[in-house]
Amino acid sequence: MDDRIHQHASVLVDWSARITAGDNVVVSVAEGAHDLAVAVADVLGERGANIVTTYNSAEISRAYLRAHETGFEPAPAHEQALYDNADSVLMLGGDRNTTATADVSGETKQAAAQAQKQVREARMSTDWVSTVHPTRALAQQAGMSYARYQDFVYDAILRDWETLAEEMERLKQRLDDGSELRVVSDDGKTDLTMSIDNRTAVNSAASVAYDSHNLPSGEVFTAPVETTVSGTVHFDVPMMIHDSQIRDAVVTFEDGTVVEYDATAGAETLAQILDTDPGARRLGEVGIGMNRGIDQITNNILFDEKMGDTVHFAVGRAYDACLPAGESGNDSAVHVDLITDIGSGAQIEIDNEVIQRNGRFQWEPEFDSSKVS
Amino acid sequence: MDDRIHQHASVLVDWSARITAGDNVVVSVAEGAHDLAVAVADVLGERGANIVTTYNSAEISRAYLRAHETGFEPAPAHEQALYDNADSVLMLGGDRNTTATADVSGETKQAAAQAQKQVREARMSTDWVSTVHPTRALAQQAGMSYARYQDFVYDAILRDWETLAEEMERLKQRLDDGSELRVVSDDGKTDLTMSIDNRTAVNSAASVAYDSHNLPSGEVFTAPVETTVSGTVHFDVPMMIHDSQIRDAVVTFEDGTVVEYDATAGAETLAQILDTDPGARRLGEVGIGMNRGIDQITNNILFDEKMGDTVHFAVGRAYDACLPAGESGNDSAVHVDLITDIGSGAQIEIDNEVIQRNGRFQWEPEFDSSKVS
Repeated sequence: MDDRIHQHASVLVDWSARITAGDNVVVSVAEGAHDLAVAVADVLGERGANIVTTYNSAEISRAYLRAHETGFEPAPAHEQALYDNADSVLMLGGDRNTTATADVSGETKQAAAQAQKQVREARMSTDWVSTVHPTRALAQQAGMSYARYQDFVYDAILRDWETLAEEMERLKQRLDDGSELRVVSDDGKTDLTMSIDNRTAVNSAASVAYDSHNLPSGEVFTAPVETTVSGTVHFDVPMMIHDSQIRDAVVTFEDGTVVEYDATAGAETLAQILDTDPGARRLGEVGIGMNRGIDQITNNILFDEKMGDTVHFAVGRAYDACLPAGESGNDSAVHVDLITDIGSGAQIEIDNEVIQRNGRFQWEPEFDSSKVS
Repeated sequence: MDDRIHQHASVLVDWSARITAGDNVVVSVAEGAHDLAVAVADVLGERGANIVTTYNSAEISRAYLRAHETGFEPAPAHEQALYDNADSVLMLGGDRNTTATADVSGETKQAAAQAQKQVREARMSTDWVSTVHPTRALAQQAGMSYARYQDFVYDAILRDWETLAEEMERLKQRLDDGSELRVVSDDGKTDLTMSIDNRTAVNSAASVAYDSHNLPSGEVFTAPVETTVSGTVHFDVPMMIHDSQIRDAVVTFEDGTVVEYDATAGAETLAQILDTDPGARRLGEVGIGMNRGIDQITNNILFDEKMGDTVHFAVGRAYDACLPAGESGNDSAVHVDLITDIGSGAQIEIDNEVIQRNGRFQWEPEFDSSKVS
């Protein structure tokens, strides 16, 4: 077995999930993630954790969803109890076919997602971490050879997380101290403003110790005050959402709600997402990618949203970690990220001060204040 | 997909597990059972059942057990809660390598099995059914080509279960009415006697409606009064137990307890099983194979013990279904079956009356009373 699989498992269990003896761990294994699961089981055994292994098969989901169609029971007792009693959930992604559920209707997927809400909330109340094992299907989705894709994945995952965490802390402080966030492009296609007053940014350093639940990570994100989002954003990075390509989505917000949207591809999928429930038309998250180890889009949100020089916005559910204690943020059955490239001809402003221009932060030597528009 | 996989799934869900809308079902998927799991998910979706899919990977178990070694926690809360809240558990066997855990020590396997006791009891309190999907590894274990093995498996599984259930009911009645059971061979190597007084035989017709939890099935079994077992039995059918071959085991009981045992192969594995706990040295089950669709040993207990013209005895845990209400039978962390061929030169007696001789029952035309010894 590739030694990087063992290193991945160690980072996941020790740095990311911080698992110790006696922890009750659910390991969710995608169809193509078997080898990583074996390596993870090895580390979990060493740590003395208790393990339940679930099989997260897209083909099984497809068969079940197509046969069931509607009337999904919310919170089945056995599934709910499993996650209510888990300390950690390790989600090992790794599809064998990224379009395995392409022939399940959007309505069925929506109904299933809505029924899953309480179970999902229980899972997200644990020290959960989502990661991915490189598969040929994911390599294909990324347009890469398998060997090159493995290098890409491990370059993104096997990083010096402590050092990266310190770098990201700087941006988190700026967001926490700020009141208004604006993202604007020179071409006039993007100009979006939102209040981030009284919200707490998450330094997503790929560890539950930072309230960060993705491996790899390398983003700093917060939850906008959802009623204040105003303006238009052009998502120029093509995304694969629910097995569909979404290209050049342009979304306009008024008083926090999506009032207009279009896309050159995947407009129907976008419509289904936005129509899930009222919360699906509001922003739950704004995130800034800072993992410069990720140097290209691979059609996988786990990586794409962490890429340096990008900003992503998610419609739907907000993360509690960003909200003032006791306050509930935007609520929805969905949480779907879309990405804008801000590496050139664009800037991020906090309270009218440019903090990033053409992909360089104010505190970096390459930051060119003369180019600020 | 082979249409027999869909038929298998239908028999499993409808005839065997009797699953209806709203049932909370755990589907346990072995490494090689993916295709069957997809077909089962399809039927479960149609029935409107709720599904949690677990991954029963021998390679994951091996890694975890070797790293953990000892001190397994009994009844981890998340695992216990999953099965406490399940209505049915469908165990889809299908190894990719039947010796995948051969390098885990017997001590570790024992410790893990003992810690699993409460979880296992919760699982066995559900409408559980164990079945197997044909894999190349199982074909290899059986000494067959893959195509021939698939035929073998589906011949055993896709039967007219209602008719077979009626045939088996005759034997069940004889066992229920009888007080003493004796199995004896002409060569003098087997002569085992036990009380079955006040016990209830199970007509194992591959359905939870018959308290029968294996698919295929086709055996009638009961629990001996465990303190009354006396004599010697020669297990002449070679068995694969815990990844080891056990050949020609000869086991002697006095006052219900194993006092002497040996085998020409696998004696050490047999010793480990018998030393698990005191209950492992007593008989928990005696079963008579009546599935003549299974016409040869394939080194898989799920099939072997159902083969016509055989008797099997299990050391360890007794099934509650065989016991008088309120009475607890033999208790153990293990339940291990060993098989004796009684197709020729042997007979089964109930209360000194020969009910089977050379593989033919008293009520069958081929029964030759002149050959009774």
